[in-house]
Amino acid sequence: VAYNIGLIGAGRMGALHAANAASNSRLDLCWIADTDRASAESLCERHNAAACGADDLLANPDVAGLIIASSSDSLLDLTIRARRAGKAVFVEKPLSLSVEALEAATSALSGQGPPVFVAFNRRFDPAFCALKARLDAGELGRLETLHLISHDPQAPSLAFIPRSGGLFRDFTVHDFDTARWLLGEAIVEVFAWASCLVDPAIAELGDVDTAKLVMRTSSGRLCMISNSRRSGYGYDQRIEAYGSKGALRVDNPEDGGVVRWGPEGRRGDPFFQSFHSRYAEAYRRETDHFADLIAGKADPRMTIEAAVAAVRLAEAAGESLRKGQPVGLALEEQQHA
Amino acid sequence: VAYNIGLIGAGRMGALHAANAASNSRLDLCWIADTDRASAESLCERHNAAACGADDLLANPDVAGLIIASSSDSLLDLTIRARRAGKAVFVEKPLSLSVEALEAATSALSGQGPPVFVAFNRRFDPAFCALKARLDAGELGRLETLHLISHDPQAPSLAFIPRSGGLFRDFTVHDFDTARWLLGEAIVEVFAWASCLVDPAIAELGDVDTAKLVMRTSSGRLCMISNSRRSGYGYDQRIEAYGSKGALRVDNPEDGGVVRWGPEGRRGDPFFQSFHSRYAEAYRRETDHFADLIAGKADPRMTIEAAVAAVRLAEAAGESLRKGQPVGLALEEQQHA
Amino acid sequence: VAYNIGLIGAGRMGALHAANAASNSRLDLCWIADTDRASAESLCERHNAAACGADDLLANPDVAGLIIASSSDSLLDLTIRARRAGKAVFVEKPLSLSVEALEAATSALSGQGPPVFVAFNRRFDPAFCALKARLDAGELGRLETLHLISHDPQAPSLAFIPRSGGLFRDFTVHDFDTARWLLGEAIVEVFAWASCLVDPAIAELGDVDTAKLVMRTSSGRLCMISNSRRSGYGYDQRIEAYGSKGALRVDNPEDGGVVRWGPEGRRGDPFFQSFHSRYAEAYRRETDHFADLIAGKADPRMTIEAAVAAVRLAEAAGESLRKGQPVGLALEEQQHA
Amino acid sequence: VAYNIGLIGAGRMGALHAANAASNSRLDLCWIADTDRASAESLCERHNAAACGADDLLANPDVAGLIIASSSDSLLDLTIRARRAGKAVFVEKPLSLSVEALEAATSALSGQGPPVFVAFNRRFDPAFCALKARLDAGELGRLETLHLISHDPQAPSLAFIPRSGGLFRDFTVHDFDTARWLLGEAIVEVFAWASCLVDPAIAELGDVDTAKLVMRTSSGRLCMISNSRRSGYGYDQRIEAYGSKGALRVDNPEDGGVVRWGPEGRRGDPFFQSFHSRYAEAYRRETDHFADLIAGKADPRMTIEAAVAAVRLAEAAGESLRKGQPVGLALEEQQHA
Repeated sequence: VAYNIGLIGAGRMGALHAANAASNSRLDLCWIADTDRASAESLCERHNAAACGADDLLANPDVAGLIIASSSDSLLDLTIRARRAGKAVFVEKPLSLSVEALEAATSALSGQGPPVFVAFNRRFDPAFCALKARLDAGELGRLETLHLISHDPQAPSLAFIPRSGGLFRDFTVHDFDTARWLLGEAIVEVFAWASCLVDPAIAELGDVDTAKLVMRTSSGRLCMISNSRRSGYGYDQRIEAYGSKGALRVDNPEDGGVVRWGPEGRRGDPFFQSFHSRYAEAYRRETDHFADLIAGKADPRMTIEAAVAAVRLAEAAGESLRKGQPVGLALEEQQHA
Repeated sequence: VAYNIGLIGAGRMGALHAANAASNSRLDLCWIADTDRASAESLCERHNAAACGADDLLANPDVAGLIIASSSDSLLDLTIRARRAGKAVFVEKPLSLSVEALEAATSALSGQGPPVFVAFNRRFDPAFCALKARLDAGELGRLETLHLISHDPQAPSLAFIPRSGGLFRDFTVHDFDTARWLLGEAIVEVFAWASCLVDPAIAELGDVDTAKLVMRTSSGRLCMISNSRRSGYGYDQRIEAYGSKGALRVDNPEDGGVVRWGPEGRRGDPFFQSFHSRYAEAYRRETDHFADLIAGKADPRMTIEAAVAAVRLAEAAGESLRKGQPVGLALEEQQHA
Repeated sequence: VAYNIGLIGAGRMGALHAANAASNSRLDLCWIADTDRASAESLCERHNAAACGADDLLANPDVAGLIIASSSDSLLDLTIRARRAGKAVFVEKPLSLSVEALEAATSALSGQGPPVFVAFNRRFDPAFCALKARLDAGELGRLETLHLISHDPQAPSLAFIPRSGGLFRDFTVHDFDTARWLLGEAIVEVFAWASCLVDPAIAELGDVDTAKLVMRTSSGRLCMISNSRRSGYGYDQRIEAYGSKGALRVDNPEDGGVVRWGPEGRRGDPFFQSFHSRYAEAYRRETDHFADLIAGKADPRMTIEAAVAAVRLAEAAGESLRKGQPVGLALEEQQHA
Repeated sequence: VAYNIGLIGAGRMGALHAANAASNSRLDLCWIADTDRASAESLCERHNAAACGADDLLANPDVAGLIIASSSDSLLDLTIRARRAGKAVFVEKPLSLSVEALEAATSALSGQGPPVFVAFNRRFDPAFCALKARLDAGELGRLETLHLISHDPQAPSLAFIPRSGGLFRDFTVHDFDTARWLLGEAIVEVFAWASCLVDPAIAELGDVDTAKLVMRTSSGRLCMISNSRRSGYGYDQRIEAYGSKGALRVDNPEDGGVVRWGPEGRRGDPFFQSFHSRYAEAYRRETDHFADLIAGKADPRMTIEAAVAAVRLAEAAGESLRKGQPVGLALEEQQHA
């Protein structure tokens, strides 16, 4: 017995989630909506689903849950409406780029009602989860400092930059969430320096492509973040956690498992070249988590409050970059999750 | 639209294949048979299937394919009967421990008729497949020598030893098949030395637990195999291929992805502790391959002839061990696959 | 034919340099001076040298060169006097903790006269030198950002903290020099956050033990530094260089070369536990470089100007920490070397 | 105070030992002899030594020790004469290719008299020594099986092949010695298969270039050896030791310490390309050991008996290859060291 679910958004992320939902034996992907009807129909054909409108989905009592992976600016509104319609919601990050909009929506998305789960993929990566579990088990004693390295294989298309919300809201937002998740403590100050070193066209669009950030928690713990829109060598996403009893690290997995020894030395397989492949298992686990949520077997692993806090840090980082100074965050604004 | 399939054998391997079939969206696991009815029913409950007898399955026209994972001594007979009944067959290795029985069955299992696929899991491991593809693409130039290391985490229960067929037929048979697959050439001579170093009780049962073998192909290429029933540190299964242009290696994957730096040094996660976890992806791909076979989209990746050749090598290795001398294999007996 | 040299300072660093000089066939360590005569005599006995006073050494025309490894506050004065006396000088870092004193001494230590070489050990580490050479050869295209991780195995004795000059002048000064060396460009701004996370007694002495710094060059390149007085797992000193064509890294060498596979996983040997062992080869090369300097075969690889620049960065980092803001550095003050 | 020593043989190995002796502060390399006077003089010039004849060296009472690195067929005779002349001897392996000659010389080289040390470099490699110490300390429980992989970067000149003594005496002899050293038990049977896969010209000269061997000890422990004259990727020399409590491994060190991350994946530095660089530290330690021997501070780490046993195994391997069968070794012939 599988739950009937619908998908809104048949783009790149929608297609990824559709494939995972289709191969999950606890979910039955029945309907797909997209403002571009042809996209919806093409994806429906692949997964034996029916194309329909978003409003139909919201109104359909047979829909137990909705995966929302539409355009960034529509995510929040659709999420609110879906929850009002009594649907469990799996919504793509970042839910919204605006702290104000998110704050205004908090009451609508919290409290009694169907579960809403904001999909930050790092929280479902098996290695990151294992790291979190070992930190929580006290293997490092007291966690003191944290290094997050997130370098993408290559910059997105220039067309995406203006609507991305900028590097911090689009990209670093993952690291802000990961930092809060792993540190388990409120971050009280952020300092950000950034440059445009990869592609001058990004600077012309008013954005940066390379950043180094430092953050401080209320108890004086420190977190460094390194970001780049282009590594040139694949998906480089690592975590280094340092504590009183040593260090725990998640390094880059290699994409294959064959090592070559040749005249040029020892050569591992390339790192993953896309988030699709790097986080394939994380996306499968997100889908499973959604099935658990619909079944009432779990609470959302990523709350609205956590999503708001991550965007708030992105906002503070932007302010720090503009002012050239660290920017503080009000403690009372941070509810930890 | 999924194919209705049945499973014969609800033991350890049957349960593993049942789980993969149940989560494969192209297969519908409808029936499970086992001589122990309670086992069948318990597994049916988990996967929403119906318990029945093996004969019912063979007679049922709705069954498109059968996974046969019953006791070793029943595999061959059930496979022959299933094929006669027009079913596609996915049968666990080793099909049979007897070269004579296998030879006698070859005509019944080859030629026109439903596909029969003998499931040697190594041939479906992603890293081994990547290695094979790179060898075939000529990355090493001419492949000259091959090292296969297969050490199990720990010895099986003593009760299993007498019915295992002995180390070579039960355990090394995988390496014999892997060697033939990767070398792509007939093996003409085998030399085997073995000892009982792990547990003297195994020697009392007339078997060995540690072996080193050398094999020679018709063109003089050499293959070394190292086997141990107990590594003490997890599943140790590696391949080293040496050629005129360097070496390609598949090393042991680690089970987690977190590295610890502590006073005792750099420590990776343990290796996998069972074939279930070490070959989880291989078993999923076997299931997928079976769906392809039923659909007529592929030929069996592992033929009857290859299964016979692997058991023949096991037999020769046993003879070598008894005589203390290398043992030759007739070239005409080896059809390569 | 070896050069007669003297050593001033028979403490920990003096003993290390004495051993290297004694086993260098191009140098003849003849005299050792220390304010503690007994220390000098004990070291003399080991290396077959004669104990004497520092003034004797400066006056002795047979002394071709002097290794100065006395207390930090005496290094600069002795170096000036040694140069005036016509001796080639190998002086331990940091030469002086005071930017003012260093600036006042620049004219006395530059220009025509015997070579003066300030021994920053990182510049002689084989792996760091290989990295520098590959960066200079353009292997990364344009170097964009740099990460320097320097974590000591354990904190120094509390008695040392007050006379250390503080974390930035005593410890980070190495990273400041390494950053300038590898970036090959003036650093224009520094931001530093630091905490006392290792030992509260260090905070009581007015110092910090954990720091994260970000630096910016005139062209917008970024450098992150991570410092800790205690790793708990040995000498952790790594460099990560990111450029337009990929990344180059120097990771921690392991101290032995034996890997253990056990139930707990794959375990490398511990990292080095002291700078003596971690930089053993670097210290040998410093000694060799000094022989080259005396022989007139090389120019000092580390100039006075570079030493001043490193201390100036330490001063700016201290100011940043006090003010909670980034601190700029005047470009004209930086002469690059 | 250094010992005056002489060197016989100014070829490749002689030059290597000369450099180490010259930079060892406990040895004074005063004289060098070679049948080719010009070679001796050229090497003398570099190390400030005096050229002379081998007979002069043997007769000279000021010579405390002799390093003998002349042509293979002269090593044994010179060693006997040097010992009779009262000199401590450091002689290159293999001392002699003939078991008969070695047996005949045993009495002359054993018992009371100056120390004779046969330089098998593996026994001085720091990593192999660390492995041996950990095995002796019981870290693996009982050592059960051993894998020795020795692949040279490239084949020697064809001119060398005929006078090499063949693959087993020239090359595998190192592994035979290493196996005996690490197993600490008599080897009772050897099986060898070998092919000419690298260069057909080697087969025309009656030799092989690729070999796989298995050996058995009296208690049933097993050792595998893999040899190749050409790896194509540098010096590949590894040891894998398997015991009841896990495994210990020495893998190939990389030559540099810089790792590159590029589009092609993670790439370590090449392995060492020659035994000079791979065993640089081992050769330095051999030289130090020789100084200890002259000083009477140590017993030869490698005895005549061990050298004879290694050549005897090479002989047995040759016989096994010719006969196509395992060959036994008489236990009484093996004195362990």
